Amino acid sequence: MGESFGYWTMGKDENVMPYVHMANIACGFHSSDPDTMARTIQLAQKHNVSIGAHPSYQDLLGFGRRSIPHTPEQISHLICYQVGAIQNLASFYDSRVDYIKPHGALYNDMMSNLEIFEAIVQAVMPTGLPLMVLAKKDNTPYLDIADEYNVPLLFEAFADRAYKDDGTLVPRHQPNAVHKNVEDIFYQAMQLANFGTVTTAKGNTLELQADTLCVHGDNEESILVIKKIYQALHRI
Amino acid sequence: MGESFGYWTMGKDENVMPYVHMANIACGFHSSDPDTMARTIQLAQKHNVSIGAHPSYQDLLGFGRRSIPHTPEQISHLICYQVGAIQNLASFYDSRVDYIKPHGALYNDMMSNLEIFEAIVQAVMPTGLPLMVLAKKDNTPYLDIADEYNVPLLFEAFADRAYKDDGTLVPRHQPNAVHKNVEDIFYQAMQLANFGTVTTAKGNTLELQADTLCVHGDNEESILVIKKIYQALHRI
Amino acid sequence: MGESFGYWTMGKDENVMPYVHMANIACGFHSSDPDTMARTIQLAQKHNVSIGAHPSYQDLLGFGRRSIPHTPEQISHLICYQVGAIQNLASFYDSRVDYIKPHGALYNDMMSNLEIFEAIVQAVMPTGLPLMVLAKKDNTPYLDIADEYNVPLLFEAFADRAYKDDGTLVPRHQPNAVHKNVEDIFYQAMQLANFGTVTTAKGNTLELQADTLCVHGDNEESILVIKKIYQALHRI
Amino acid sequence: MGESFGYWTMGKDENVMPYVHMANIACGFHSSDPDTMARTIQLAQKHNVSIGAHPSYQDLLGFGRRSIPHTPEQISHLICYQVGAIQNLASFYDSRVDYIKPHGALYNDMMSNLEIFEAIVQAVMPTGLPLMVLAKKDNTPYLDIADEYNVPLLFEAFADRAYKDDGTLVPRHQPNAVHKNVEDIFYQAMQLANFGTVTTAKGNTLELQADTLCVHGDNEESILVIKKIYQALHRI
Repeated sequence: MGESFGYWTMGKDENVMPYVHMANIACGFHSSDPDTMARTIQLAQKHNVSIGAHPSYQDLLGFGRRSIPHTPEQISHLICYQVGAIQNLASFYDSRVDYIKPHGALYNDMMSNLEIFEAIVQAVMPTGLPLMVLAKKDNTPYLDIADEYNVPLLFEAFADRAYKDDGTLVPRHQPNAVHKNVEDIFYQAMQLANFGTVTTAKGNTLELQADTLCVHGDNEESILVIKKIYQALHRI
Repeated sequence: MGESFGYWTMGKDENVMPYVHMANIACGFHSSDPDTMARTIQLAQKHNVSIGAHPSYQDLLGFGRRSIPHTPEQISHLICYQVGAIQNLASFYDSRVDYIKPHGALYNDMMSNLEIFEAIVQAVMPTGLPLMVLAKKDNTPYLDIADEYNVPLLFEAFADRAYKDDGTLVPRHQPNAVHKNVEDIFYQAMQLANFGTVTTAKGNTLELQADTLCVHGDNEESILVIKKIYQALHRI
Repeated sequence: MGESFGYWTMGKDENVMPYVHMANIACGFHSSDPDTMARTIQLAQKHNVSIGAHPSYQDLLGFGRRSIPHTPEQISHLICYQVGAIQNLASFYDSRVDYIKPHGALYNDMMSNLEIFEAIVQAVMPTGLPLMVLAKKDNTPYLDIADEYNVPLLFEAFADRAYKDDGTLVPRHQPNAVHKNVEDIFYQAMQLANFGTVTTAKGNTLELQADTLCVHGDNEESILVIKKIYQALHRI
Repeated sequence: MGESFGYWTMGKDENVMPYVHMANIACGFHSSDPDTMARTIQLAQKHNVSIGAHPSYQDLLGFGRRSIPHTPEQISHLICYQVGAIQNLASFYDSRVDYIKPHGALYNDMMSNLEIFEAIVQAVMPTGLPLMVLAKKDNTPYLDIADEYNVPLLFEAFADRAYKDDGTLVPRHQPNAVHKNVEDIFYQAMQLANFGTVTTAKGNTLELQADTLCVHGDNEESILVIKKIYQALHRI
């Protein structure tokens, strides 16, 4: 959420906010700006939605979806900077940040490179906040590092992304990486919520231990189905 | 301090840090980047120097010295964003920010426009930190607003800038705005410290109630004389 | 046109392009990027629409609508840089730039400050292209300078902006600066085209000698009415 | 050259320009800005030095030395934009661009990925200018593509970089990638100029057919030795 930038609008935050429990709010590096962040924090507050810092590589043009080489130390600084920025904006509005979830290429790099994961965990540690990561088939490598720094992890699953058999996401540049059909998104959400499984791109059934369910605010179909998912989950 | 940016170096922070008590550290909007901020925070820490957040308009190319139109609300958000960013970086290194001092055109606009001053005071309030402002002939308008929000003010005087008779600085685009002679800088520092006065560009003597004394890290002559000022002040 | 930026979309260029003769294409400083520029150049080409370079202050966040202090020499360089960039992109697609029209705050500053106007004329001169400016009540000061440098001027009138009695535009931050009613926009276009006059915000009739008629691509109502204006003009 | 940015200075262009025949001038994406470009063009002009456009990835913070994912089409647009910008600035000062040489990571990616090389060749073609590339052991793959588009190639060798046995450069992140000893730089320059060979990091002798010799403006040792190289080459 909060992925507008200056005069450009993205997403339909007003429509989506009533139907989520947690909102990942961009921190100005891949999208957003201090005013957009302030507006989005207030919108989350109005709907009693948990605020997540959503830091990323510094890449407005590429929307944070391009992997840019960084040392682990640079990754830690990048996270500290953005998280502190949104924390202080939240505090200005008597609100607070509840968790941290890296965005885009930084999220993917964190999941595929444990050195980057550890640099992020180190940056998260002094905040005392939980870090949100991808629930995979085997989560032990992430749990081992996070435990070392006493950083709680929140595992998430995606309603609108296709999965590979190891529980990683089909990369965006591949065909059918993002579900564009409201039925598919709704069905994957229900399967995850009710059975704790997902059907992979290859047709296999994969068990995923997830704490939260994510849909993308820049995916039009997801926005269409989010109210229905919300209502179905509240009946469970 | 910390006004380098990526591969570009500015100032001689290593040489200056041993001879100051307070360091205004840039927050990435007019100069600096998360890595430079981290490095400068550690340098200040090493020398037991107080860290000041030095937020500014977002203008790397103009080094924050160009006034860019903002609403008061935008000013508050701008300050919150940058102050939070440096606070969290400081916290990552077990350090902390002790005060806030706006930079360049934002500093000047704050002094000449009470609406902007109030927007900054509002942003500073929730941090509980003091705000550093220019000691002028008459400080009551600023004190009145700051008192309303319970924000403590630190008044500063400049060793290397020429003064107008009302206690404002001669603007940078005017001739002789910045002292470029080490004797002049040293003498103005001593006059401020020993007599609480400054000799204005017009030759008048002006009383200034200042808590701190500032020199500019991008003024070569200031760097040359800073050790001498430091030693003289410590003999006082 | 071409005012999208990376992943953010602005305007409905595909819908508008068939109904204009000239398209001002952003050059990357207030909006757009090399890929968006390339796409917009090709779209103009497809519809046989003249391409205008639309340079601006470097201000993505403020969409080029904030006046940022520059020396006249800096203005000239700013124009040269952006115009060259789009000219070469056009040339890559076997197309060409036909005229130059500054954007936003730079356009307004050009009209209110003859020093800035002259700096722009100097930058335009070596390209041999015409410069598009606002048709005012009295155009002689602009014509005098442009003649000195042999730069042809194209005078434009606005269908969707309110006018002051001297032929300048009601500033955007004032109420009713932009017409938001399709009938008003259509009527002002017809009055300009058929009678060479405009009715000012104060209700007076002002004669304007205009070569071209402009509507804004980020004004939804303008986009709605542009086809109707186009058809009406072609019946004249 | 021209790798300063706003208030930050890099290199000693005034000292170097008298001793080179060709100057690669940054185009604002990894360093420089329209004013710095204008100043550097005038300096080159004063010393009758050929101007090369030095386009790069858009990455001020990383100085264009980080590889950022782009499609070949995006690469073409990136080149067109920057080359046009500097060509028009040169034309404003009655000067011209004589050749094009990509910078940093874009240069390396061009040499290691023929798809990127072809995208650059396509962007260079309509300008009619030569493209400067790295002289390697085997230059045929580059010549084959360049010939297809009728783009002349200029092959360059480096005086201050260590070579691998295949004629590619030792990457910057490896030890001893850049010669930091004036004798080594001078010797490598002389060996290249007099014998057309270079001694690789592994101690082997490699033949290189080079048209030009490059030293880096941000390498202090190179600047110290450039006058000596110039004089030796001129057999003074």
